Amino acid sequence: MKKLKICFIGIKGGISTTLIAGIFKSIQENRRPGGLLTDTALFHGCDLCDMTDFEFGGFDIRGIDLYKSALENDQNNILNIRYNEELRERLEAIPVYKGIITNGGKTISDIADEGFTDDRPQMADMVDEVRSVLREFKGDDDCIVVNVASTERFMKTNKCHSSLERFEQGIRENSSELTPGQLYAYAAFMENIPYINFTPSICCDIPALFELAEKRKVPFAGKDGKTGETLVKTVLADLFFVRNLKVNMWYGTNILGNLDGKILDDSMHKSSKIESKKNVLKSCLGYETDTQVRIDYMKHSGDNKVAWDYIHFSGFCGANMTLTFSWFGIDSFLAAPLVVDLIRLVNLAQKRGEYGIQKQLSVFFKSPVGVQVHSLVRQYDMLKEWVEQK
Amino acid sequence: MKKLKICFIGIKGGISTTLIAGIFKSIQENRRPGGLLTDTALFHGCDLCDMTDFEFGGFDIRGIDLYKSALENDQNNILNIRYNEELRERLEAIPVYKGIITNGGKTISDIADEGFTDDRPQMADMVDEVRSVLREFKGDDDCIVVNVASTERFMKTNKCHSSLERFEQGIRENSSELTPGQLYAYAAFMENIPYINFTPSICCDIPALFELAEKRKVPFAGKDGKTGETLVKTVLADLFFVRNLKVNMWYGTNILGNLDGKILDDSMHKSSKIESKKNVLKSCLGYETDTQVRIDYMKHSGDNKVAWDYIHFSGFCGANMTLTFSWFGIDSFLAAPLVVDLIRLVNLAQKRGEYGIQKQLSVFFKSPVGVQVHSLVRQYDMLKEWVEQK
Amino acid sequence: MKKLKICFIGIKGGISTTLIAGIFKSIQENRRPGGLLTDTALFHGCDLCDMTDFEFGGFDIRGIDLYKSALENDQNNILNIRYNEELRERLEAIPVYKGIITNGGKTISDIADEGFTDDRPQMADMVDEVRSVLREFKGDDDCIVVNVASTERFMKTNKCHSSLERFEQGIRENSSELTPGQLYAYAAFMENIPYINFTPSICCDIPALFELAEKRKVPFAGKDGKTGETLVKTVLADLFFVRNLKVNMWYGTNILGNLDGKILDDSMHKSSKIESKKNVLKSCLGYETDTQVRIDYMKHSGDNKVAWDYIHFSGFCGANMTLTFSWFGIDSFLAAPLVVDLIRLVNLAQKRGEYGIQKQLSVFFKSPVGVQVHSLVRQYDMLKEWVEQK
Amino acid sequence: MKKLKICFIGIKGGISTTLIAGIFKSIQENRRPGGLLTDTALFHGCDLCDMTDFEFGGFDIRGIDLYKSALENDQNNILNIRYNEELRERLEAIPVYKGIITNGGKTISDIADEGFTDDRPQMADMVDEVRSVLREFKGDDDCIVVNVASTERFMKTNKCHSSLERFEQGIRENSSELTPGQLYAYAAFMENIPYINFTPSICCDIPALFELAEKRKVPFAGKDGKTGETLVKTVLADLFFVRNLKVNMWYGTNILGNLDGKILDDSMHKSSKIESKKNVLKSCLGYETDTQVRIDYMKHSGDNKVAWDYIHFSGFCGANMTLTFSWFGIDSFLAAPLVVDLIRLVNLAQKRGEYGIQKQLSVFFKSPVGVQVHSLVRQYDMLKEWVEQK
Repeated sequence: MKKLKICFIGIKGGISTTLIAGIFKSIQENRRPGGLLTDTALFHGCDLCDMTDFEFGGFDIRGIDLYKSALENDQNNILNIRYNEELRERLEAIPVYKGIITNGGKTISDIADEGFTDDRPQMADMVDEVRSVLREFKGDDDCIVVNVASTERFMKTNKCHSSLERFEQGIRENSSELTPGQLYAYAAFMENIPYINFTPSICCDIPALFELAEKRKVPFAGKDGKTGETLVKTVLADLFFVRNLKVNMWYGTNILGNLDGKILDDSMHKSSKIESKKNVLKSCLGYETDTQVRIDYMKHSGDNKVAWDYIHFSGFCGANMTLTFSWFGIDSFLAAPLVVDLIRLVNLAQKRGEYGIQKQLSVFFKSPVGVQVHSLVRQYDMLKEWVEQK
Repeated sequence: MKKLKICFIGIKGGISTTLIAGIFKSIQENRRPGGLLTDTALFHGCDLCDMTDFEFGGFDIRGIDLYKSALENDQNNILNIRYNEELRERLEAIPVYKGIITNGGKTISDIADEGFTDDRPQMADMVDEVRSVLREFKGDDDCIVVNVASTERFMKTNKCHSSLERFEQGIRENSSELTPGQLYAYAAFMENIPYINFTPSICCDIPALFELAEKRKVPFAGKDGKTGETLVKTVLADLFFVRNLKVNMWYGTNILGNLDGKILDDSMHKSSKIESKKNVLKSCLGYETDTQVRIDYMKHSGDNKVAWDYIHFSGFCGANMTLTFSWFGIDSFLAAPLVVDLIRLVNLAQKRGEYGIQKQLSVFFKSPVGVQVHSLVRQYDMLKEWVEQK
Repeated sequence: MKKLKICFIGIKGGISTTLIAGIFKSIQENRRPGGLLTDTALFHGCDLCDMTDFEFGGFDIRGIDLYKSALENDQNNILNIRYNEELRERLEAIPVYKGIITNGGKTISDIADEGFTDDRPQMADMVDEVRSVLREFKGDDDCIVVNVASTERFMKTNKCHSSLERFEQGIRENSSELTPGQLYAYAAFMENIPYINFTPSICCDIPALFELAEKRKVPFAGKDGKTGETLVKTVLADLFFVRNLKVNMWYGTNILGNLDGKILDDSMHKSSKIESKKNVLKSCLGYETDTQVRIDYMKHSGDNKVAWDYIHFSGFCGANMTLTFSWFGIDSFLAAPLVVDLIRLVNLAQKRGEYGIQKQLSVFFKSPVGVQVHSLVRQYDMLKEWVEQK
Repeated sequence: MKKLKICFIGIKGGISTTLIAGIFKSIQENRRPGGLLTDTALFHGCDLCDMTDFEFGGFDIRGIDLYKSALENDQNNILNIRYNEELRERLEAIPVYKGIITNGGKTISDIADEGFTDDRPQMADMVDEVRSVLREFKGDDDCIVVNVASTERFMKTNKCHSSLERFEQGIRENSSELTPGQLYAYAAFMENIPYINFTPSICCDIPALFELAEKRKVPFAGKDGKTGETLVKTVLADLFFVRNLKVNMWYGTNILGNLDGKILDDSMHKSSKIESKKNVLKSCLGYETDTQVRIDYMKHSGDNKVAWDYIHFSGFCGANMTLTFSWFGIDSFLAAPLVVDLIRLVNLAQKRGEYGIQKQLSVFFKSPVGVQVHSLVRQYDMLKEWVEQK
């Protein structure tokens, strides 16, 4: 039986360690992990791989021990990693490869540790190294690359991104416009490996990589996992639309204290995220409203993300009313099952012979590539249709 | 040009006075009232009547002056009725007829004033009187009866409700099982007038009146306008469904201080409402969750309804998380545009030759008669399909 | 060195097991437990006993194993009892005695298990047994009885309570008006042991027991620990008082899912609690406001108590404004350090030769016996003055 | 009978127009304005001036009509100015003088209109003009200058501020370090007129003006009215102190849409305010906590300020808990009665022969000059003591 090899970019981060430890624990306790859409009735009869088929590996740029990182991230003692020797052993056995930091932005370089990054002077050599790692890691099995690294600094698309030819030229010329996420995606596609971009960074959503994915017939999906405040937004906005209540302002504030939050505290990186969050409302409501999205790093929050949104709206004869919500989510635990769902569904798409951007997976993303629909229910319907069509 | 005569049951209440004053004011200021779904692009090209075609009248059991009631209800000075002489004149010109209180429950009798109810000893005479009022009020125009009266005490469906024959026998025998709302519906149907039940009371949702509506080819719609907390519920529940997050408990509390709230403070009447609210979750989530719905009368709230909901849910590996929301709505101003939408759409249905229960209008109701779908977006889709089919 | 023997009524409950396990763990880890007022600078120089002097024992009526109860109560894995073998041994070594249920109310009887209650037919025999247990438990050490049992059903004070003589007559006649909490208090006083009533039940706050405490020169304190919603109320109310903002309504709802909550779900028992909560506002504001206090049992909450309060107030020219707060507290962990503080301070009072009701401890109680001050800050000042006076 | 002339700096702003219109309306309707601390029992017997003694005038830099500004500011129709002809006349009769903008910061200059500012090139001439206006306005009556202008840009205290001599030298040399608020204060003191600084700007809280106030024997009070989020903070912080609960983080966000908010959106001006807000917590808790204060301008909010605070704290054995509150206040209506109280009490102080900084008025301020106490209750006690001492 074929394995499904999962290669994380940022494997020591909160999402991947939670996912891996959570999957190991579920297997250990012989029960479903919970929170998987792909475990619902809709997917009965689909040829989905499952957690016992998974094998993990990945890239990282930080020196911290993967086990220790998993332990720290379990701040709420949900997985109780500390007292589970078997889990420790399995976590410690996971292969970790040196990652790329070139052009990722200062905050990314700041968290990198000496000896844990690929510091070759030639970009082409880095890419070759990533490809060779992937080739070996994959072997004869199925494989998927999943980007769960920290958000890269915001960068406009540019010439280098406009075609595969220019992209490859950029690699040869060590262009400052090619980011780590893009180089990984390029390497994956060249090795016929699907790619999931769970981050807000611009990775495979550029013409050059569209072209490559089509050419190599590899599926990919992205971007920016819809886990918290935005998730709530994309159902609540429907309410105002269906009732024709005018949203005068939508103010949202997010507090988080994990590494993601620390990186986002740098305004260059935050822009990537906030851009991704803002488009959503306009698309759901059908008009631009006065909106503000705050993301603040507060160390004590750790992985426990708190969001508070204040929505001011008018109805009949201009009557002013408000709705507020507070979201107390655990970031990595919200993200992990989405990543599992994505892995299973991108793998399914590949088995079905599909390639290029997988639009039916928009339900998982804040900025679904190539899709203008942000309403969660509508996005679910797109997935449902895809599942049922075959 | 034909008028559209609108006959309210409970015309002195918050919803109807807000609706009427709001429509008059919008006409006066020559602008759209706002908050109407039927004013959105979806309905372009539909043969909808409009506010300038409306003429109002109705039944009530309270002695309070209609104008004064409208004034009191405008506690937030949204309509600024106090300083609008023209509005006063138009409100004072509205015809009000004596209403029925028989079998409505003690709390209903308690708010009735002497001389303002139809106190004939024979039920058959009351029905005849209502029919004769409706006949005259309607004249050669279109007409719709809209029930916006206070919630009647909860009553199980019974023998009298099981067929038209038994219902009419019940009338002749002054049965204690026939409620005011049902008698009005019967009278309306006999006069070929459509009926909208905006209250949680059991009115036309009984076999006897289904039979009559079919026989007389009259459309009707109900029940229990979805204006506040439940509205939010029916979009948020989709989130938990689509993410396969397990809702462990959903606690909701509602504070209100209008007449509706006062009536609901009587537990017999509250049951009608809470039953109506509880079904919603099970339908949206697909399973029963531990749920509690509180409705508390607090005089100072007046028409300003505050709801707070606390939702506790689990995700990946049993991680516990919560979502809370607070809703600060103005009850009558949320209800009024829904009633206008319903009036226009039931009238449209009648013009299209449709009759019986109008299932496509479920988007407006907490307990849509004959429909199991509670998801707001799904309900909207049903309406959309109906609008577009012709 | 003398020990301080602490005898809990309801030793298998959430507060006592959290307190005991928490103290053991703090000793084990050689650090302060945290959350103790008596650990602040104010008490430097006071002759306070400390946790290493504590020895625990107590009464209970439930069959559940004390260790297992402690484990279950640690639902948030704060103490991580499961993996701590030493803690288990210490918890299992604690002596538990059969408790009294007579006249406690039906819900109390319902949670009692066969073989774990004192079922002697004569009340006098029960009291003798309690006294004899206490005498032996105490030995030559200091001792304090702490009532942390479930709330008894609400009972008005009556003749039996009016004097020591009548009380003792009541015992002899097996009066149905003497409750478990009162019998324990009587027994404690007779053995010269101080008594802390942390529950809302009427225990030592009756003339008969006042008389006895004076006679035997024993100090006591109560009642109803101020741990959550009420705690917040008694500081916020000061705001409205100092700003002369008129509170029009104060609505509060409490969700809890522990045994306390289950007992309170019985309305006879809830009355005790709600009475205790309502007085507070009037005292702080100086006038009666429209107030409502809800307590709802929701199993999934467990020990995690959630309170939401909605306060509507008016200011300059009648401007209406609101304040809401949400409290997410862990009940037993809020109560435990207060009980430790109370134990240390009642013991200190006894050493200082004081007896009768200890009014300076009002800062810990929702219904401080003999004190009309509810403002937290004012109550703190009373304690401060007492500490500093000697 | 002597009048009390009140001279506002920023008389066309929200606070002063609300105060003036509210006072006129209260006189008109012959009732107390409400929300005045000086109307409570504590002040019975004090020789306080009252609203019928007030006469208003003031400086401004904006061209907008005072009446129109009052109208716009009454967005919630609380004063119903629109329909009150008498009110209009009284508002239009109020004298408005050209204000100073020199050194106030760019955002201040931006809101100034041509022809409405004192644009003399010499600072000394401006000061003379202000003095002459004040002299004439005062006549033989009592007089108080109240600064309710927009927040000036943040400026460190500097050499010019260090003594009266240097200050006067600064005036002569047109120093860029002397701000409008300081020049007004100087002018007022020179005319023996008390000064209240209700803004966060640095005005009379500098050595130079302390010196002058002492020399001229004039009382003054400041600074930064404690009206909203900070008000709540300074009572809640007491809770954590009294319970010895460790505050790990306190995150607060403020949404407002009035002119104050617009000015604060400029980060140079916001610093003044946030500095003022941050000190409070440290003083109340006794230690530095991780804190963040956000102020965001959202146009639709207008004068309706919304604040949301999230407080994360630990208790017994490190148990983590949270408290959140939401404040829905109407800014000007919260500030106006405080200003009235301050006017009455500063006037009283003057009558009592007191001068210099009036520390007993700290209860009204976020940054009480010369006082380290921020606890609202403690501050109230200071005022109480002052009132009762004579």
